[in-house]
Amino acid sequence: MFRLDHIGLVTKNIEELAHVFRTLGLNEITESLENPRQKVAASFVNVGGREDIYVEILEPTRNDSPITKFLEKQGGGLHHLCFEVNDIKKTSLELVEKGFKMIVPPEDCEAYDENLKRECNDITKIAFFIVSDRLLIELIEKG
Amino acid sequence: MFRLDHIGLVTKNIEELAHVFRTLGLNEITESLENPRQKVAASFVNVGGREDIYVEILEPTRNDSPITKFLEKQGGGLHHLCFEVNDIKKTSLELVEKGFKMIVPPEDCEAYDENLKRECNDITKIAFFIVSDRLLIELIEKG
Repeated sequence: MFRLDHIGLVTKNIEELAHVFRTLGLNEITESLENPRQKVAASFVNVGGREDIYVEILEPTRNDSPITKFLEKQGGGLHHLCFEVNDIKKTSLELVEKGFKMIVPPEDCEAYDENLKRECNDITKIAFFIVSDRLLIELIEKG
Repeated sequence: MFRLDHIGLVTKNIEELAHVFRTLGLNEITESLENPRQKVAASFVNVGGREDIYVEILEPTRNDSPITKFLEKQGGGLHHLCFEVNDIKKTSLELVEKGFKMIVPPEDCEAYDENLKRECNDITKIAFFIVSDRLLIELIEKG
């Protein structure tokens, strides 16, 4: 299983982008929530039809946030694709074996569960990979 | 209705990116097809789970293609979000009234139907809007 979960969109102002999505008629937007581990704040906009698929609007909360450079260099914009997998450790090992560059190994992401108000037994886990010179992907195993 | 249909991803080599997606295990990929009106070639990768949602891998076919500048400036990458709407003329007018900049008014896109082997009575229509300084969206009304 490798299914699109969300598209990361970087901005210097979450509320500005959330306003754009609301104006387009996409009103199902979570409140902006800080994620101290990843040094970002995020809001999720539901853009799926029958299926929950999100745009994750991201804003750096610190100068050493992993998205600060992208924001400074490109002024923001579409940043990464996130795919849901069943077993993030196994899939991450497979991707490394296939030669993809892992930039963040699997780690907990409580903020995802909290932001989307998910009731879950385990904490959701995420990892990041560069799969081509211009494509960053995230893996997510939902708790 | 405003539902994510696909994410546009610009590259100088469709086959290279298609290979990346196949390596990730995403094997449902259409053959690259030229779209003379938009001056691009495109392949669609199905990345949805229960629902058909695509990554559209795009390569310019001419120097004056609308994606040539993006490719030259940023080296490619995630380019636009495409949302399905019921009535593209009506929605386009509404977005213009709301102050969004229309850069391509509704036009036929036979290539979408042909590429995805869609059987349809009307030709699919698309339009493009700049909705923030770093976000380009496409609307699509499927035929």
